[in-house]
Amino acid sequence: MSAKRAVVLLSGGLDSATCLALARAEGFEAHALTVRYGQRHAVELERAAEVAQALGAASHRTVSLDLRAIGGSALTADVSVPKDRADDGTIPVTYVPARNTIFLGLALGLAETLGAQDLFIGANDVDYSGYPDCRPAFIAAFEGLANLATAAGVGGARYRVHAPLLRLTKAEIIQKGVELGVDYGLTHSCYDPDAQGRACGHCDSCAHRKKGFAEAGVPDPTVYAP
Amino acid sequence: MSAKRAVVLLSGGLDSATCLALARAEGFEAHALTVRYGQRHAVELERAAEVAQALGAASHRTVSLDLRAIGGSALTADVSVPKDRADDGTIPVTYVPARNTIFLGLALGLAETLGAQDLFIGANDVDYSGYPDCRPAFIAAFEGLANLATAAGVGGARYRVHAPLLRLTKAEIIQKGVELGVDYGLTHSCYDPDAQGRACGHCDSCAHRKKGFAEAGVPDPTVYAP
Repeated sequence: MSAKRAVVLLSGGLDSATCLALARAEGFEAHALTVRYGQRHAVELERAAEVAQALGAASHRTVSLDLRAIGGSALTADVSVPKDRADDGTIPVTYVPARNTIFLGLALGLAETLGAQDLFIGANDVDYSGYPDCRPAFIAAFEGLANLATAAGVGGARYRVHAPLLRLTKAEIIQKGVELGVDYGLTHSCYDPDAQGRACGHCDSCAHRKKGFAEAGVPDPTVYAP
Repeated sequence: MSAKRAVVLLSGGLDSATCLALARAEGFEAHALTVRYGQRHAVELERAAEVAQALGAASHRTVSLDLRAIGGSALTADVSVPKDRADDGTIPVTYVPARNTIFLGLALGLAETLGAQDLFIGANDVDYSGYPDCRPAFIAAFEGLANLATAAGVGGARYRVHAPLLRLTKAEIIQKGVELGVDYGLTHSCYDPDAQGRACGHCDSCAHRKKGFAEAGVPDPTVYAP
């Protein structure tokens, strides 16, 4: 019997790389989907292709979507990425409006095309910078929507949205990934890298990543700008 | 008091033009959003801009999204558009997997950026070619998702997804649009126009449109290829 297919959203970052490794470890034939959405940290996209190959994805597709027409985020509009920000419980300007709704919609479209019923997303509700669409209630609601939204769902398919990192700390994610052989040196997390693609070390994403490696007791392979 | 803002998905077709006219008639400041998704009938996009202007949209944006990477539809992949198809209750190859999920996700992102809580979509459950994501249950499920998916929703915003054409026949849609002054000569419905942008007259979309004008007793302004 051939492996069941899954679509895995892959940004090229630490979380989604771990998510892909987990999908593979569960025995899925994993089809990676990367969205080029006008993010300023485009180095992510090159890393996504390397990660997909290293972790044995069955295929890797990049969908281009120009979210700059919508704006509303420091990641896609001409707004500065905050540095060394205190975590005050508010939603930061790096939030991209409705991003996970849009990304899961694209993953769902690909899943239907491939005959897959399993979607993987590396959303995280712990070190998640306060993004609303990384909460368990959102993931559950999308799963319900998927069954109504598709021809396959009408035909009896039952979609599952796997968010295996949802309740893990960054350190736990890293420990799991190390067990599964993820090479975190290939991954990229920084929102605001320099021209050489080196991490800034001071945005929210760098801060969470640094703290995660420190707490996991794993050497941080990230190349930071001097 | 200024008008409430709404985001209106506008394809350049008959249904979405009527939907925009209805949003305007309800007093909304209407921000039109068109998705360039790799559809073969790109003439739609030019018509969308003309329709937005003619119906007094406050703004019109086009978001590019290359759905061809996902495939799965005669509208985006290299598959022939069926002609003179009998309506046999099956979902035709012109179905685009998860399209309305993706499009409403984009509309939601723009709504959040603009501070709007009202989304309009010209989905129709009658002459709808059997698309699953044009059903009332799908629309209701997306509305629930929207409140969970956004920072605004977390902050107490309550999104409404208006699908005012959901239960209307094509003839009723056309009658309503004529009352509201929609110039259907600007709109485009054909899935497979010729190089001059003229409608084929034989795809599902042309068939529904022709029948609608005939049943409404309204002269059909469509230019058909000879």
